[in-house]
Order: sequence, then structure tokens, then C-alpha cells
Amino acid sequence: MLERAREMDAADPLAQYRDRFELPEGVIYLDGNSLGALPKATPARLERVVREEWGGDLIKSWNTADWISLPQRVGGKIAPLIGAEAHEVIVADSVSVNLFKLISAALAMQSGRKVILSEPGNFPTDLYMIQGLEKQGLAEQRLADRDAIVDALDDDVALLLLTHVHYKTGQKYDMAALTKAAHEAGALVLWDLSHTGGAMPVALNDCEADFAVGCGYKYLNGGPGAPAYAFVAERHHERLEQPLSGWMGHAQPFAFDDAYQPAPGTQRLLCGTAPILSVAALEEGVDLVAEIGVDRLWEKSQALSGFLLECLSEAGVSLDLVSPNDPSKRGSQLSFRHENAYALCQALIARGVIGDFRAPDVLRLGFAPAYLRFGDIAETARHLAEVLESGEWQRPEFSERAAVT
Amino acid sequence: MLERAREMDAADPLAQYRDRFELPEGVIYLDGNSLGALPKATPARLERVVREEWGGDLIKSWNTADWISLPQRVGGKIAPLIGAEAHEVIVADSVSVNLFKLISAALAMQSGRKVILSEPGNFPTDLYMIQGLEKQGLAEQRLADRDAIVDALDDDVALLLLTHVHYKTGQKYDMAALTKAAHEAGALVLWDLSHTGGAMPVALNDCEADFAVGCGYKYLNGGPGAPAYAFVAERHHERLEQPLSGWMGHAQPFAFDDAYQPAPGTQRLLCGTAPILSVAALEEGVDLVAEIGVDRLWEKSQALSGFLLECLSEAGVSLDLVSPNDPSKRGSQLSFRHENAYALCQALIARGVIGDFRAPDVLRLGFAPAYLRFGDIAETARHLAEVLESGEWQRPEFSERAAVT
Repeated sequence: MLERAREMDAADPLAQYRDRFELPEGVIYLDGNSLGALPKATPARLERVVREEWGGDLIKSWNTADWISLPQRVGGKIAPLIGAEAHEVIVADSVSVNLFKLISAALAMQSGRKVILSEPGNFPTDLYMIQGLEKQGLAEQRLADRDAIVDALDDDVALLLLTHVHYKTGQKYDMAALTKAAHEAGALVLWDLSHTGGAMPVALNDCEADFAVGCGYKYLNGGPGAPAYAFVAERHHERLEQPLSGWMGHAQPFAFDDAYQPAPGTQRLLCGTAPILSVAALEEGVDLVAEIGVDRLWEKSQALSGFLLECLSEAGVSLDLVSPNDPSKRGSQLSFRHENAYALCQALIARGVIGDFRAPDVLRLGFAPAYLRFGDIAETARHLAEVLESGEWQRPEFSERAAVT
Repeated sequence: MLERAREMDAADPLAQYRDRFELPEGVIYLDGNSLGALPKATPARLERVVREEWGGDLIKSWNTADWISLPQRVGGKIAPLIGAEAHEVIVADSVSVNLFKLISAALAMQSGRKVILSEPGNFPTDLYMIQGLEKQGLAEQRLADRDAIVDALDDDVALLLLTHVHYKTGQKYDMAALTKAAHEAGALVLWDLSHTGGAMPVALNDCEADFAVGCGYKYLNGGPGAPAYAFVAERHHERLEQPLSGWMGHAQPFAFDDAYQPAPGTQRLLCGTAPILSVAALEEGVDLVAEIGVDRLWEKSQALSGFLLECLSEAGVSLDLVSPNDPSKRGSQLSFRHENAYALCQALIARGVIGDFRAPDVLRLGFAPAYLRFGDIAETARHLAEVLESGEWQRPEFSERAAVT
């Protein structure tokens, strides 16, 4: 398979982009779905922001370097990656905080309805933010399994909140169909794009989605804990109301009025002052993804994951694939269930193959096609076959749990 | 006065610290209360975090560089600056978001009471966050002027929310007395330390304060939009409950449970993933402030502001001082009312003296004693006298308003 991998790499139109990232020697990085790699442009950008803008121009940079518009500008660049208009997307806070804002916004629009419908096993923070509003007495959480969601949509459901691609299994929802079903039941829909944005084309407006949130530090390569983004369809802008009504979301922050007056559109999703260093780093990641193009990334991602399955089959490795076999039904990852998934993952990391573990029993391998080669995939299959065959994952050191798994 | 300034600088025990900051040539920076200057250690720290931790060690840095504990670690370093114990302070989100969490926490502890008492003209975001909860139907805003606050404390007041030092006037509350009065009325107290933390010693625990929030980008020199911090007195930790219950505030984030279980103490104030680059930059600023010491900073601050008043008087400048004359009753700033404050501020900036304007009519000069010299103060007085005398502030270009004032 190494020979075939070499041919595929030679023919890969994205091969050149690997050089746009800083990547350590001897590492095959299959965790770009958890923390995207460092774009080479980012350190220089940060150096400029820190030394010239902050150090040199100090407070003036809010105007001269246009820090004040950075959240809108970067949001506007994310928009085309997810099928939205520039003014419908803004960078702010974290995914969790944005979920709180948009669940609240949906509740405010849906008087008489307070059920937020989601699925058990959704990414925890999505559920926890519903539970936070539930404790405030404002929401009621309802969970239904994937195949029961449409039936669970009734007159009480204010909002359907789903993660487009499941963080653990990689299963992908049919965004158009679910959005339509929710709307038919009078519910609004909030899509969490954390495992989608920057990995594949998303068509929020074509699907008539109402709200979305997404993550800056995965496929957008924005750096550890990069700020998140939020989308609100234009048709909802006038009625958009959210309780984290901070001064940066005010129509005139520098009038210092006592009474809150919301800024237009998605700008009213801003709350406090944005962490400029982190937003600037995110902009570099977004620019690079936009340059490569999500269509091309997604095409290569499917080729990479398909090739891994072929290589594993060729090597006689039989693992329990949790992700859908059909690449159009999964995200940019392959997840395998194994009762010793944690140790297996650690044994691979010791060999320089970095995937991750998701409790209780999933080994997750993510494909960030901007910097992954087909040769890396063939090597991954070989390492995985060797680790399983030799039983080296059984070494005691591979079972010691770290704080972050 | 220049001669005297020279003597004071020669005798200044903090003089050496100016060299620990990157400061542009020819600038007198009197806006460290809005955006603190760049510590020289910060660019190198960011370079390490970006190139080695993110670029080199990638996802592993959550454990190997202990990114996961960064919010607690930096919070623990801020704690002694504000009279708190390490485990009572955590770095998270923005001041605004932390206000929302802690106002909510107070409401949850005070069943039957929903009034949040503050003053008109408090920093807008403090009021806007009350208003956000009011729109949710959970809080009721009550505003009382400074001298009427104690009388406004009745059985309905759940929380007294005040900014310790007023952003515009520099007036300082008597934290001990107000906290005591609130407690006697059965109310809890939340202090906004945005214009206090890192500028002067604060004694949260000695004053028996319940909650506090504070800003990372002013006197702590954490960089533009640096993350904020939150304090909760230990006695409230067990009952602490807040609605932004994100996964990083869960007792076991990596168990990926469907049900939220709060982490111990202030850790449950964490919501989403912290912006690591920005928190790392903040740590450098905090380390430097801690090294210099808030007692020494405050002593020099009072000397600086007193000296400016002397120099202005000597130069025959008569301006309407909004800040208290008694340095123990004000923060680390002097504010002057002038009907053309905006143009006056711009004219000073054109001469390299950077203060700021606060609508509608305040010229605000902040003292960050770690990098300000007495010579800068004498020069400031001279420039101010010349600008006023010559009328150069009347030039039309000085009246053109920028986006951020």
C-alpha cells in the first residue's frame, strides 16, 4: 500500500499545503479534529499584533489596527465556509457561551414553548448549557435517540439542538431533512458545527438553518482554546435577543449609556471585550482554510479515510468501526470501538501516531487533509496492525490516565 | 518642577521596572488603566506557547504544558493581589460573562430576593448584565446614587453590585463599610475590581466580600481583551451554582457524561475551553505586577497623581477635577471635566501624551506606576497647559470621532 500511497500523494492537489504548517518531525497527526496544527503564518502575525499593535501603538490600535472590528471581520471570513452571509456570522467567546446565547435567543422567540430537544450522548457542553437554562427555570431538556428525534418534535419543542457531526462517532446528520422536520413542527434549529466547520462544505442557508455555533481550534486551526463563532440567519436578526448583553454588543458601546440597546444583527452577540491575540491567531487559520477551500479539503478527507479502511483491511486488522461506512454519512474522522481504546491510543502515540481517546471505549482518528499525506495513512495502518498484533498496548504505562485524555 | 521630577525619579524604588516593558519612544502613556503596556517577557512567552507547545507538542500540551490548569494557576497568582486565597480566584471568559455568572449565583443563593442594587453611571456592562437577567425575568435592577445606596438596601435586595473604583470619575468605595451594610441587610456583595486589581492592594477577604470580578487587560498588563478573573469567597463554594455550566466546569470533563456535575469551588465557573494564548500572555503580566508588588505600586501611584495636581497648579492650569482630592478616596487615575474633553484628549495624543476620553465630557489620565516616571508627569502638565493656553485643541481634526474613543 505504501507504493499506492506514494502515487496518491504525488497526484494530490493539496500536497503543497502541508508546507504551510509547522509540524514536528516523526509525527503523524490524526488529531486535527481536536487541536488543529499551527499555520506557519501565525507566529509572525502574533509577533506583529503583540510588538507593533499592542507594544507600539498601545490603546490606539483599537482604531488604527481595527481591533474593534476583528470579531465581525473573522466571522465574515468563516461565513462562506459554512454557507452563510458575512453579516450572519461573528466570532465571540466559546462554543459553550454561544450555545447559551442562542438557546436563550430561541426561547425568547418561541413564547409558550420551552423544550430544547437534543440527543443523549451529544457533546456534553451542548447538553450542559441546556441544563444551565433548565436550572434557571427557563428551559426543559428533552433527549431522543437519533432515530426517534423526528417523532419527539411536538408543540412543546422550542429548539432542536444537534451537533452536525458527532464528536465521538463521526456520524453526520442530514441537516436539510432535520431542519425541515423541526420547522414543520414549529421548532427552530441550532446546529453545532464544531466538527464540521472547516472540514467540509456546510450549507446553513440552503438548509434554512436558524442558528449555528462552531469551534475555532479544530479544523480552523485557530490555536488552543481559540474563540468560537456564532451564526444567526438574517431573517431572525431583528428579533434576536440574548441575555449576555454585554457592552460590546451595545449599539454604541462608547456612549456609556445606562440602558442596553442592542447593536444591529449578530453584533449583539458580542458580550465583553474579545481576546484580540486569540482572535488574530484564529484569523490566520481561517484564511488558510479559505485559501485551500472546504470542497477540496472534504474531497481529500474522504479519500484519506477510505484509504485507511482499505489499508487496515489489507493488513488484516479487524476493528469495530463506529463511524458510518458511507463517507457521505460521516465527518472527517474514523472512530473505532475497542475495550482497551485508551491503551491502544497511548501505544500509537508512543510510536508518533497521534489520535485520541473518547471515553469509555473509542479510538478516534481525525483527518485534517491540509497537512495529512496518504503515506501517513499507510503508516498509520501499519502501526495499528503492529500494535494490535504485538500486544504492546498491554504495557502498564499505556494505561496510566492523564488529566486530559 | 522638572528639577523636582528628576529628583523623585532618582529616588524612585520602582524606576528599574520601566525597563521591563516595551514602550514606544516619545510617548507618555497615561492609559494603562485602559490597556496596560506590553511586558518585555510576553513576546518570548507567546513564542514558546505558539511554536513549542502548540506547534511542537500539539494536543499533548494540554497535559505536558499543563494548559488544563492554566486558568486556576493564573487565578491563584491574582489572588494575593486582591486579598484572596489562591483557590478562590480563577481566570475565565470576560468581565461581562463573569458578572452574569456571579449575579446568577447570588440570585440562586437568595431565594425570594431578586433585586440587584447598583448605581447609575456604573460601568455600562455591569448594568447591562443585570438587564440581561432582568429580561430573562430573573432579576430586577435597582439603581441608587452613591450616597443613597445604604438606604436602598432592603429585604428585596439579593445582591449589591458595585465597581470598587469608578471607571470615569476614579471615586473609590469604602469596600469594608459597604460590604458590611449590605450584609446587615441580608444582601450579598459583588465587587467589580476592573479599575482596582493590580493598581492597589485590595482586601476582599478582610472585607468579607462575597464575589468579585476583574479585568486582565488594564493594570494586570495581560494584553488587548485579556481574559478576566472571578472571585468567590470560600464559604460560598459549596452552594455556588451558575447557569453557564459548560464542560470545563464539570467535575470530570473527560468522562463526557450527559449530566452536569459541578467541579469543586471556583473551577465550576469555567465554561468553555480557555483561550490559551491569551491566558498565557496574562500570566506574564500578572507575574510582573506580583513581582513589583501592589503596595509599592499604589504608593507610587498616589505620589504620581499628587505630583500632577501640584504641577498643574504651579502651571496655573485650572481644570474641573472630578476625582476626589484625597488620594485615599480615589483610584489610580485623575479625571477632569471639560466641555471639549474629546478634542483636548486628541490634542494631547498628537503631542504624544496618551490619556483617554470618557463620554460625554471627561478627560481621564491613568497612572500605571510600573512604567510611569515623575518626569512624564511634569511633561504632561506642561503639554496640558500649552494645549489649553494655545487653544490648539480647537483644530477641527481633533474633533473627528473615531470608532473607539
